[in-house]
Amino acid sequence: MLAAVMRNARLDVATVADPEPGPGQLLVRTRACGICGSDLHALQHGPDLVAMTDEAAASAGADLPLPVINMDLGRDVVMGHEFVGEVLAAGPGATAHAVGDLVVSMPVAFDAAGIHQVGYSNLYPGGYGEQMVLNDDLALTVPNGLSARLAALTEPMAVGVHAVNRSGIEPGTAAVVLGCGPVGLAVVAALAAKGVEPIVAADFSPTRRALAAGLGAHRVVDPAEAEPVAAWREADGTHPLVIFEAVGVPGMIDQAMRTAPRLAQVLVVGVCMLEDTIRPLRGIARELDVRFALGYDPLEFAGTLRSIAEGELDVAPLITGTVPIEDVPAAFAALADPDAHAKILVEPGATSTL
Amino acid sequence: MLAAVMRNARLDVATVADPEPGPGQLLVRTRACGICGSDLHALQHGPDLVAMTDEAAASAGADLPLPVINMDLGRDVVMGHEFVGEVLAAGPGATAHAVGDLVVSMPVAFDAAGIHQVGYSNLYPGGYGEQMVLNDDLALTVPNGLSARLAALTEPMAVGVHAVNRSGIEPGTAAVVLGCGPVGLAVVAALAAKGVEPIVAADFSPTRRALAAGLGAHRVVDPAEAEPVAAWREADGTHPLVIFEAVGVPGMIDQAMRTAPRLAQVLVVGVCMLEDTIRPLRGIARELDVRFALGYDPLEFAGTLRSIAEGELDVAPLITGTVPIEDVPAAFAALADPDAHAKILVEPGATSTL
Repeated sequence: MLAAVMRNARLDVATVADPEPGPGQLLVRTRACGICGSDLHALQHGPDLVAMTDEAAASAGADLPLPVINMDLGRDVVMGHEFVGEVLAAGPGATAHAVGDLVVSMPVAFDAAGIHQVGYSNLYPGGYGEQMVLNDDLALTVPNGLSARLAALTEPMAVGVHAVNRSGIEPGTAAVVLGCGPVGLAVVAALAAKGVEPIVAADFSPTRRALAAGLGAHRVVDPAEAEPVAAWREADGTHPLVIFEAVGVPGMIDQAMRTAPRLAQVLVVGVCMLEDTIRPLRGIARELDVRFALGYDPLEFAGTLRSIAEGELDVAPLITGTVPIEDVPAAFAALADPDAHAKILVEPGATSTL
Repeated sequence: MLAAVMRNARLDVATVADPEPGPGQLLVRTRACGICGSDLHALQHGPDLVAMTDEAAASAGADLPLPVINMDLGRDVVMGHEFVGEVLAAGPGATAHAVGDLVVSMPVAFDAAGIHQVGYSNLYPGGYGEQMVLNDDLALTVPNGLSARLAALTEPMAVGVHAVNRSGIEPGTAAVVLGCGPVGLAVVAALAAKGVEPIVAADFSPTRRALAAGLGAHRVVDPAEAEPVAAWREADGTHPLVIFEAVGVPGMIDQAMRTAPRLAQVLVVGVCMLEDTIRPLRGIARELDVRFALGYDPLEFAGTLRSIAEGELDVAPLITGTVPIEDVPAAFAALADPDAHAKILVEPGATSTL
């Protein structure tokens, strides 16, 4: 099959072997797959990602039923974990779905060898290839009428829903969202769906600020013109506050800690793969709570699909471009300009809109 | 009066003016005052402390009824904020206490000019001097029969009680305490009083490990021989976990984050005044919660005094030495050796036991 392949920190389009479904698995044809900032990170900082996954898996220890099978960066990896596919064939014992079903799944697969991350695996290609193998038990049928394009936003939106859940925020508490890339925008949409007010969203990009306003931010701020928490103080300043850090570059956590009011929470959902410097005394002086969020759980994933299908989460504005598999490397390059795009979808066979 | 005086990062014994009580204030004679690690920090890193207090006061903004009056490090500061005193005289309108009453107080004073930190102030000397001025409204009478020596432990023990409260830990969750200086030991005692089990306490010093065991730690660990969280895994490993970081030097937060299991909380109560380096990906990969604690609230302070008086918190083992005011500089030097002392009390007129 055709796929965008990562190997030794390079991304190239190539023909690779078709995946084959094992017992309890489905072979699906990729219909749409979002490009995630994590994939850009992985291409640049792959060894860090592998080391951290190893460390996390080791610390989880006996809690996991199967070993986590990590990727070898020197061998082919087909990334893409925000996917929607159409069932082509079922492996032995996979009876929950029929050929032709449109399905999404958490990007996890398991077999007798262990647990694999679809899209960060040498064995389980993700949605930057024409075909994928998914576990029948984890695949969710896309509710009737929801387009593959919108269903592909289930995974990134679930990240926002989970970050909001992990913070424990409820109406009556205010939110500042630092960074309006896809993760920050998903957080804004999830906060709006929960009725949090005010939501102050900050980004240097006017395009992204406009998207944040469209998704429910009550006030948008250019950090070059106003410090985001100061903007919140001006607009509100009285409610308890959660600051969502969705930028993920060094210095952001310390910046949030420096500006946060007493007893505020800093919810870190931006993935910073580098070392970072903080001043602990800032956290101590204001008794801050720096909480980290990653991913989502199966109920959050399924709930997000339902919320998108019901129109509770209006996520269509997030999609700013479409490319065929051949143009995945060009799309990675385009995403380096934060003012050009939010979410680019890979659609096999599509015409590029870049 | 005689006092140990900090000025321009030096600590000297000198004669300074007696303080005078204003309206609603008491003049007290210092009976006992613990030496706190924060004072050793303040002598070394005073400008950092002042800058952070300024920053915190600025961020609190209009939430405070009065401005916080910070200290000028180029002028005399009499430190000492873990004090017990005997009322010598009452200022106008101070009617809640009688001459001769033994009292403790949160180390805060207020007057028409603003809020002052007793012991970190040019105007309100702390317990390293013979006399102090306290606010009548904040002074608590030491319950009948509790010695001044034990009552002097109210403040440092309240720090442990607050850290435990701030973590939200309850029986059913395990605790690892990194560092068994006075703060770590106070945390151990507060955890034991709450019924938390197991409590694993780690310190390089055998003296401090023995103190931790005496105060209620179920297992003590020498970090040179076993990584503390690994020791907890061996002893337990199944309960949710809170790691109390009570060392307060760079690298400790990252160490806690590196070893913590998924969804653990790291409660930072050790005061690190320097910049520190963390790997945010560690927090993200395990969805950690890094929560900071500082001080205590008035109810926690009063409750701690009551718990000590009732024998619920057995804190006597914490006191490992006594010095007169003349020997405060020597006591600061002695505290540099972590194996020699936990809490040294200053008692005006006492004979040194160093």
